[in-house]
Amino acid sequence: MTDDMKKAAAFLKERDNFEILTHDYPDGDTLGSGYSLCLVLQQMGKNARVITTSVPKDFDFLKKGIVEQSFEAQTVVSVDVADEKLLGANREKYAGRIDLCIDHHLINRVEAPLKLVEGTAAANCAILFKLYKLMGVEITREIANCLYTGISTDTGCFRYTNTTSEIMRICADIIDIGCDTAYINKVMFETKSRKKIALEREVYDTIEYCFGDRCAIIAVTLDIQKKLGVGDGELEGLASIPRQIEGVEIGITMREKEPDEFKVSVRTNGSVNAAELCARLGGGGHSAAAGCSVNGSLEEAKEKLKAVVSEVL
Amino acid sequence: MTDDMKKAAAFLKERDNFEILTHDYPDGDTLGSGYSLCLVLQQMGKNARVITTSVPKDFDFLKKGIVEQSFEAQTVVSVDVADEKLLGANREKYAGRIDLCIDHHLINRVEAPLKLVEGTAAANCAILFKLYKLMGVEITREIANCLYTGISTDTGCFRYTNTTSEIMRICADIIDIGCDTAYINKVMFETKSRKKIALEREVYDTIEYCFGDRCAIIAVTLDIQKKLGVGDGELEGLASIPRQIEGVEIGITMREKEPDEFKVSVRTNGSVNAAELCARLGGGGHSAAAGCSVNGSLEEAKEKLKAVVSEVL
Repeated sequence: MTDDMKKAAAFLKERDNFEILTHDYPDGDTLGSGYSLCLVLQQMGKNARVITTSVPKDFDFLKKGIVEQSFEAQTVVSVDVADEKLLGANREKYAGRIDLCIDHHLINRVEAPLKLVEGTAAANCAILFKLYKLMGVEITREIANCLYTGISTDTGCFRYTNTTSEIMRICADIIDIGCDTAYINKVMFETKSRKKIALEREVYDTIEYCFGDRCAIIAVTLDIQKKLGVGDGELEGLASIPRQIEGVEIGITMREKEPDEFKVSVRTNGSVNAAELCARLGGGGHSAAAGCSVNGSLEEAKEKLKAVVSEVL
Repeated sequence: MTDDMKKAAAFLKERDNFEILTHDYPDGDTLGSGYSLCLVLQQMGKNARVITTSVPKDFDFLKKGIVEQSFEAQTVVSVDVADEKLLGANREKYAGRIDLCIDHHLINRVEAPLKLVEGTAAANCAILFKLYKLMGVEITREIANCLYTGISTDTGCFRYTNTTSEIMRICADIIDIGCDTAYINKVMFETKSRKKIALEREVYDTIEYCFGDRCAIIAVTLDIQKKLGVGDGELEGLASIPRQIEGVEIGITMREKEPDEFKVSVRTNGSVNAAELCARLGGGGHSAAAGCSVNGSLEEAKEKLKAVVSEVL
């Protein structure tokens, strides 16, 4: 147990009337963190609520057991928020007001008097599991469901390289509590909407192989998005398609955001640095996953991308 | 530790000159079992080889560390083989000659003087992990890679409901040994051949929704198979496509094996019993995954399937 964790545990025990902030476009880890912490605090007889910009319907089950309480907020905790900018519509109200920041991002820019940041943790929910154990609260099935959702989504259901033996042991303990992994895995990893299926079919037609098949590019134009009526929900996860193709080292996904304006996601396998590639077009990111924006018609934007790919290959 | 496990450990220590049999159309669990056991026996200074009908190239890495030895076989062990029928081309030579059968199928029909069968184990490799611990052998990285491959493939990379806390803890121990989960997950779960991508695209065009979208049917005709030049490798895993679609309770995959002869896979979510559905057409299987054969043209075969679906829905 780190000192920061002991301080965070003491702080949560001491204070009351909590507001728990998630990041914008919330995912399984920030929502699992938020709702599990809310359940823990309510179990301790305190007032707490989660403040988020939205909850995608697939995550509604995380709220199970939460009691809506009416109270005047006194304590603000952020979970899985690396920067106040990421609070979205809640930024204006809460910026500079965070009392405790719990996060697992390598670079955390939140300014708060108390911070529990473990940059090597695969999921924020993994930090919280240890915190709850330290606090001695009962990890109920509902809390276990929240924690499993956060950990499984942030590790790609144990496929990503952040899946350590510690993560496996935490999940073993969570499973022993009786969390509903069957339901969560089904909803998170084994369900596609009809629109998503239609979109994948359409996107498969756009695959272009280049540089001796070492690079694959897919494009989701505004035309496709309008024709199928797809939004962010369906478009998420597409970037993994070109990277998955056997032999492909650079997988590029182009999404037309506005006419002649493309948001580009680059995923690489091993040898090529995606962040370096995207930096050449004013973007950035990690070595295996990065992004940038490129303007022009589809063909013009592709040519710009191919030009930088030819530089790095 | 069960008595059977103790007996199996003693037997392996006592005997020498092993031939280890996998099942036909070998998968990650039978090959991971076979090669790990071969490595363990060779580590003990014994002679051993794996006898299998084929090794798909993605599994070639499992052989790392195996020494080719020339010897006259004296002891036959089968791994992950539920029935001698499943030995394929090796059946004739080895039927009735198995000395030790190690398996995790609920129903095991192999006749052998010594059997270590745990029908509740998610993977045969999970049984072997415990056996190797009992035997006190060193589980090297190569052995760990074999065991992880078997466990991860048989649990759908920890998505299936057979993923118990014990499985998670075994994998935590395996990860601590230093097995290459990044490589194995990438090859097993994150890589699709170009042919597979082309096939999925083609198959998406065949999706038919029926019974108020509670049932979805896909069809892989001989025409499609010939056009794309796809074989068993690409066709594997297709059955999960219709089942994954949101709202679908019965996902049906029809594969034309011979002209006007369809091999049908049925996958269901929860309420409908797939085995019962397939039994009406002379097939069988499990409650969530079953199969049968249906003759006729594509349209005729579909009508026969829809008729039984209408009976169970």
